Amino acid sequence: MFAEILSVGNEVVCGAVVDENAAWLARRLNELGLPVQRHAAVSDSVEAIRDEIRASARRVRVVVITGGLGPTRDDRTRQALAEALGRPLELDDASAEHIQAFFGNLGRAMPEANLQQAQLPGGTRALANAWGTAPGIRAEIGECWIYALPGVPREMKAMFDHHVAPELRELAGRWQVAVKILRTFGAGESAVGQALAEWMAPGRNPSVGTEAREGLVSVRIVACGSAAGEAERLVEADADRFRAVLGDLVFGEDDDTLAAVVGRRLVEQGATLATAESCTGGLLAKSVTDVSGSSRYFLRGYVTYSNESKVDLLGVPAALIESHGAVSEPVAKAMAEGCRQRAGSDYALSVTGIAGPTGGTADKPVGLVHFGLAEPTACHVHTVRFGEHLDREAIRDRTCSTALNLLRRLLLA
Amino acid sequence: MFAEILSVGNEVVCGAVVDENAAWLARRLNELGLPVQRHAAVSDSVEAIRDEIRASARRVRVVVITGGLGPTRDDRTRQALAEALGRPLELDDASAEHIQAFFGNLGRAMPEANLQQAQLPGGTRALANAWGTAPGIRAEIGECWIYALPGVPREMKAMFDHHVAPELRELAGRWQVAVKILRTFGAGESAVGQALAEWMAPGRNPSVGTEAREGLVSVRIVACGSAAGEAERLVEADADRFRAVLGDLVFGEDDDTLAAVVGRRLVEQGATLATAESCTGGLLAKSVTDVSGSSRYFLRGYVTYSNESKVDLLGVPAALIESHGAVSEPVAKAMAEGCRQRAGSDYALSVTGIAGPTGGTADKPVGLVHFGLAEPTACHVHTVRFGEHLDREAIRDRTCSTALNLLRRLLLA
Repeated sequence: MFAEILSVGNEVVCGAVVDENAAWLARRLNELGLPVQRHAAVSDSVEAIRDEIRASARRVRVVVITGGLGPTRDDRTRQALAEALGRPLELDDASAEHIQAFFGNLGRAMPEANLQQAQLPGGTRALANAWGTAPGIRAEIGECWIYALPGVPREMKAMFDHHVAPELRELAGRWQVAVKILRTFGAGESAVGQALAEWMAPGRNPSVGTEAREGLVSVRIVACGSAAGEAERLVEADADRFRAVLGDLVFGEDDDTLAAVVGRRLVEQGATLATAESCTGGLLAKSVTDVSGSSRYFLRGYVTYSNESKVDLLGVPAALIESHGAVSEPVAKAMAEGCRQRAGSDYALSVTGIAGPTGGTADKPVGLVHFGLAEPTACHVHTVRFGEHLDREAIRDRTCSTALNLLRRLLLA
Repeated sequence: MFAEILSVGNEVVCGAVVDENAAWLARRLNELGLPVQRHAAVSDSVEAIRDEIRASARRVRVVVITGGLGPTRDDRTRQALAEALGRPLELDDASAEHIQAFFGNLGRAMPEANLQQAQLPGGTRALANAWGTAPGIRAEIGECWIYALPGVPREMKAMFDHHVAPELRELAGRWQVAVKILRTFGAGESAVGQALAEWMAPGRNPSVGTEAREGLVSVRIVACGSAAGEAERLVEADADRFRAVLGDLVFGEDDDTLAAVVGRRLVEQGATLATAESCTGGLLAKSVTDVSGSSRYFLRGYVTYSNESKVDLLGVPAALIESHGAVSEPVAKAMAEGCRQRAGSDYALSVTGIAGPTGGTADKPVGLVHFGLAEPTACHVHTVRFGEHLDREAIRDRTCSTALNLLRRLLLA
């Protein structure tokens, strides 16, 4: 039983948008026990979409389509699916009501165009969209189940989990797949891969793979089993093994982020945090407050972009900036100490560096970042030189991960 | 004259890797005048790769394949291409020498497995790889030109630019494609689509499409032309038309972001900005400082997450918070005024709201956000209630876009 994925939209085909939907769906379908054998992406053409649907339906048991369900004239998945099925479009009253109610709740009149989103091919079923206006569509061609979902990632993911996954779980039946991801920070992908090499042989169950993203390396463990709980047990056994091998490189699992893990520890210890940042310009505070409930431990953040603001808000001595420069260990230390004191927090993290692409010098190149971490009894400093292959965004991302990881390790100790 | 892109590899098909190669190639091929009409991704199966190559070669003039040229047993593009061509693999002496020399330069012995990378289908041409070991392959099936390139992005891009682009430029000849994207904020996709409906008819040149992403709606204009400059002229004419129709909903074009556009205006006016934010927790400052060079106008940001920090850092009267609550228009106003005054900036943006998922009440539901915008002569307030369908991340994203757009419109006036 295989699956295929079809992405619809000129923005994907012409390369304006990278098709992250397809990768996300592939992972989910694989986890559900429906291995994906193929993706395709086609433009907003009724003929192209229709032909792909027909060809996929002949090959596989499940096809998931994303995109082309919007309210404008270039949204053609509904029409294409109708042609693939050989049935006309009909107004689905429940969907029409839902769309009208959606705009009603926003206190806005429904544009006439949105009503076309309630047009579904005859004999298909609408998948309610609680997250937007476009209903999804469930159709069948022969043995093949077809799901058309919106292209907006947030809506697509919510609708897949809500409507599609339960049906596919039943389809996959006794055959179960368990997945666990260990999240690591502090070593490169090849180092993690080398440490786990003996378990990464092709054909092994569970299969083990690594993936690097913005400095974080994830270890993906996927097991298949038919006896109850077998897949889960296999995955857990591997996860235990790998935790022993990787030690405290592992900061969490599955959806854990560094910020969430740090937040849990702060809550456990009843401790509070404040941040003072220069080159990350708010991203560090943003990462901390990505976590719902972070107001329990996060007091405040200082985005001290100008030198004056470092002096004014954090009490960094102007002479210190003059003699060492704003990007220096002494300034990072003074920022963290001043931040902790003025915020009245237990811990304070500071960051000062050169995110580029401009502003680097031979002495202080782009990618040079200094960190400060103040705790009640001490203030630690740390320096990293991120590589030249990284751009501004990547340097800022990794700077935040590094800062949070410093705090994580301190809280572990 | 159209092109198609084929990505080969289990890591793409199972979703472990997002297919950024395909998006990159699509943009390049479009720029060269060879519009891409389809991408596909298939697993490391000789049959699957072969069938895709054959089908694409019947449809289009150019096929670019990435991946499957490595030295291991799961690299099967060479074999698949040989079968699609109906010719056996043969050792290409020049490629074999190149691979041996590559290892020689690294001071390492060549693993035997790498020699299979010099096996090419008969009658094809090797594309030298100065950036790695795997040579690319150029083949023809009927009228269709086929290029197989490595999957490693750095090698693929360098080889495309070096070997493939010059040949395709000649093939495309006079035929040119021009693309322009208008970026809008402040209206939904259906409203924008309705305003532009008469230009979105299928088959029109330029083609016009809309795409919504986190509250921003983009209008994509793609024109083909054969006379010199014709495609450019068509695209510009549409862009002018649409700007007239959409007015100041249009904030920029192509790679413009709201933060970059606001930044340009601040630089033009020699004005400075500071931010004070609660529910966005640093994201607003982060968005402003995403722009390289933002230190010219961005002075500082206050992330006043706790009530105490609003009083302490911004001078918001404690009594105001007590009587109206931290999430209220008077507090948003006091935050902006205090921020502007204490930072000594020309403008200050403030945000206070409920990003959820917890913290909402009947009176002040999740998604309610108040904005303050202080300028030298006045302080404006604005309130938005984001819909219940949005999650924490989406509410925070749109809050930042809304704040930046308020400033943009003020700077325009």
